[in-house]
Amino acid sequence: MNPAFRFTLEARDGRARSGRLATTRGEIRTPAFMPVGTAATVKAMLPESVAATGADILLGNTYHLMLRPGAEQIAALGGLHRFMNWGGPILTDSGGYQVMSLTDLRKMTEDGVRFRSHIDGSEHWLTPERSMEIQRLLGSDIVMAFDECTPFPCTREQAAASMRLSMRWAERSKAAFGAPERQALFGIQQGSTHPALRQESADRLREIGFDGYAIGGLAVGEGQAVMFEVLDFAPDMLPEDRPRYLMGVGKPADLLGAVARGVDMFDCVLPTRSGRTGQAFTRRGVVNIKNARHAADPRPLDADCTCPACAGYSRAYLHHVFKAGEIVSSMLLSWHNLHYYQELMAGIRRAIGAGGLAGFAEATQARWAAGDIAPL
Amino acid sequence: MNPAFRFTLEARDGRARSGRLATTRGEIRTPAFMPVGTAATVKAMLPESVAATGADILLGNTYHLMLRPGAEQIAALGGLHRFMNWGGPILTDSGGYQVMSLTDLRKMTEDGVRFRSHIDGSEHWLTPERSMEIQRLLGSDIVMAFDECTPFPCTREQAAASMRLSMRWAERSKAAFGAPERQALFGIQQGSTHPALRQESADRLREIGFDGYAIGGLAVGEGQAVMFEVLDFAPDMLPEDRPRYLMGVGKPADLLGAVARGVDMFDCVLPTRSGRTGQAFTRRGVVNIKNARHAADPRPLDADCTCPACAGYSRAYLHHVFKAGEIVSSMLLSWHNLHYYQELMAGIRRAIGAGGLAGFAEATQARWAAGDIAPL
Repeated sequence: MNPAFRFTLEARDGRARSGRLATTRGEIRTPAFMPVGTAATVKAMLPESVAATGADILLGNTYHLMLRPGAEQIAALGGLHRFMNWGGPILTDSGGYQVMSLTDLRKMTEDGVRFRSHIDGSEHWLTPERSMEIQRLLGSDIVMAFDECTPFPCTREQAAASMRLSMRWAERSKAAFGAPERQALFGIQQGSTHPALRQESADRLREIGFDGYAIGGLAVGEGQAVMFEVLDFAPDMLPEDRPRYLMGVGKPADLLGAVARGVDMFDCVLPTRSGRTGQAFTRRGVVNIKNARHAADPRPLDADCTCPACAGYSRAYLHHVFKAGEIVSSMLLSWHNLHYYQELMAGIRRAIGAGGLAGFAEATQARWAAGDIAPL
Repeated sequence: MNPAFRFTLEARDGRARSGRLATTRGEIRTPAFMPVGTAATVKAMLPESVAATGADILLGNTYHLMLRPGAEQIAALGGLHRFMNWGGPILTDSGGYQVMSLTDLRKMTEDGVRFRSHIDGSEHWLTPERSMEIQRLLGSDIVMAFDECTPFPCTREQAAASMRLSMRWAERSKAAFGAPERQALFGIQQGSTHPALRQESADRLREIGFDGYAIGGLAVGEGQAVMFEVLDFAPDMLPEDRPRYLMGVGKPADLLGAVARGVDMFDCVLPTRSGRTGQAFTRRGVVNIKNARHAADPRPLDADCTCPACAGYSRAYLHHVFKAGEIVSSMLLSWHNLHYYQELMAGIRRAIGAGGLAGFAEATQARWAAGDIAPL
């Protein structure tokens, strides 16, 4: 493992683990949730506010940043951290997923993917080598190998071919990555829902050797039940002493279930995207602030929450500013949701440390199921 | 004067004055610029951030708040301060100006104005009595008399009739206002560009007796030259020992010129609205951040500015997030502009205290005229 990165497991509870991932830009407490800063901003948040929620690390999107403002441009401006004013660690994805999900005109070959920008139609290439170069230019702390996120559903043959392509790309990613002093490289396990393919992928990644391992190809429409079925076996195939990162997940209940199955890291746009559409995650489940029943409610979203939205404002206010289309609505609800996600992760870490994750998960889910606060 | 409100003039420099207006919710340093919080939010800002820029007082819009969420609703929730989480003083306008500028179907009579909401078409009335009731329900610290903002241009006869209607409404506003312990009432001078009408209006307002006096009917399309011509005589007609408030003004140069002519208070949406459209006010004049020449510029908007946008970000970043339509663009530029406005007001107050307003204005305008920072 890159000497600048040190992953220390501190506690285990069943298959769940808690620990710390040291980077040259600070420590990441695991299990960790990484807010998504797609275009060099966690939407509707200032970076100091993201840090105040308890986030140790952000995710940046290679695809978006390579198109606008451009990786070379960001490098010329001192790298992504300086550009977006975030001093902590940043993980960047490889761009592969967004190329497949956001572009219409694309052509995939053994070499990589040729595509047109969804912003201006300009033509671009992404290959393992170019993805590594872009992530080096961005200066991310954790670089993701370039892969194809296998679609769901697909045949076993498609899943195998896609996984094997990703493994060839993983090898090229590792070779192109080299041995930078301040960056770590994560490989990505594919194989869809098939244990044998997941095992083949894990074995191949382990042979190549990475600083951490992601579980790819989930949260792509298969649903929580199927995802958990895969997580029942997939994480255990990956090296025990390296962080395991489940990409693009998820809802609070997904996080609980995935941690219990051995996952250490997560990223998802859900807390910020939901914040912008008026949906708040709370200890008492989801609150849809646009619902008219909140219009006269003087109570906060969650009386036990210490975030600025709950400390300073009523549901009535949050309802009002959402209905009025005010930016402060996105600001406050995004902050609340990121705060809630980080509190959930902190609770998960404490529970693992105390050997009580199952009880914590049960109590947490019972509160969610009890539902939103009682009517006035 | 309401004993809860005390206006203390501390320095004079020509016709300019500096001082302090004490309210039960805190002191307002004058000359003062009031950020506008139309719908119970200063757009794209959290109230603690507005306070951090140096703002002592906010303005709220009666028209918007009466329609959504409703004055009775805000009162039931503890008043506007609690609703919007702002503990400092709030001035509310009377609703008269917005009724005339934002509604299509309206009917004005001696009694008041009947109109349809621009939000949902519902029918409403505004009268001096209802405006006072709404502003009482909102709990604003400074209440504005209900008036008609005389349009520009208009004939002398129209200006006279409009002004006299506003004076009858001023009397009814005063009667309906009563003698609340924690609120002050400001009258509004009208009379368009005509000295005799402005004098008649000032005399009538003084007879009725107000805690402060606004200069209305300006910044409605007449241009800075005409506005300054009116300000050459209008403020001096108002009581010397009461604050004078020029409504809806303005650009930085308008503030300099109006202070020099004896104005103590201002409000304007310009710093926040311009922030949302990519326009920044700086010591070196206006910067249009969407201009492509900023795309690779590593320098801050203004190297001497201490606001978060200038302390943490390059012009290249601000250009990028504006082009990408990111909310953080509105957040950072609104913050910068409000910070700049408050710094300008602080500079004005210091200059008046030192008897050097003319020199300060000249130097400030010379820097604006020198233009934006040199090319790299």
